[in-house]
Amino acid sequence: MRIHHVGIAVADLEAAIKMYTSVFGAELTQRATSEQDGLEAAFLQMGAAELELLAAVRADSPVGKFVAKHGPGLHHVAFGVADIEKALVDARDAGMELIDAKPRMGMHGVRIAFVHPKSVGGVLTEFVEL
Amino acid sequence: MRIHHVGIAVADLEAAIKMYTSVFGAELTQRATSEQDGLEAAFLQMGAAELELLAAVRADSPVGKFVAKHGPGLHHVAFGVADIEKALVDARDAGMELIDAKPRMGMHGVRIAFVHPKSVGGVLTEFVEL
Repeated sequence: MRIHHVGIAVADLEAAIKMYTSVFGAELTQRATSEQDGLEAAFLQMGAAELELLAAVRADSPVGKFVAKHGPGLHHVAFGVADIEKALVDARDAGMELIDAKPRMGMHGVRIAFVHPKSVGGVLTEFVEL
Repeated sequence: MRIHHVGIAVADLEAAIKMYTSVFGAELTQRATSEQDGLEAAFLQMGAAELELLAAVRADSPVGKFVAKHGPGLHHVAFGVADIEKALVDARDAGMELIDAKPRMGMHGVRIAFVHPKSVGGVLTEFVEL
């Protein structure tokens, strides 16, 4: 597995994109909206990994609730895997609680699945199929 | 800039190393202790970036206070830069508050500096000189 991206919950997507591109030299590569997850996202390349900036479009969405509780900030880390089914089996065999028992289609156009943070030392963890 | 590592505060360093190496296929590359920062760290390679697992050795250390307040979890993100002085000037010029006005020696044996999370949308941000 490799670090695929770091997910960051933001209050203002445009301001965050501007900051990461102008101050930290990130390159905006993609924008996407997920009605299902109630969020708008921007993907920024930084070396071999990406930042995924996440802004809630509804207060009752998972990211909206996260920001209401914790404020904006680090949200999740995603590991790129060759075989997402195997990654989920291995995680379950290790006693981890899966948020997504089966892979689902992510905004990158590839299959993703989340593991519950309580199983991973407080870190919301995503698998992304490469 | 590129994503150099993701810092994760952990309650039990040995258990966290075991989880990331056995379940997520990370490779333990280095361990270090910082008396100044009151922490023990383990560096794990995952693709082109690293995880830095951080465990407090004193409750009153920055990581100890973080875990007492938030619980274990995502702690900071570090960007690798060619010129850390320039990165700090650019950040200050953009109105960011620096925790380290000048670079200091990090556990990697290279110079580092932190930017205050309130300047970076709630994300504690580190520069690492490559």
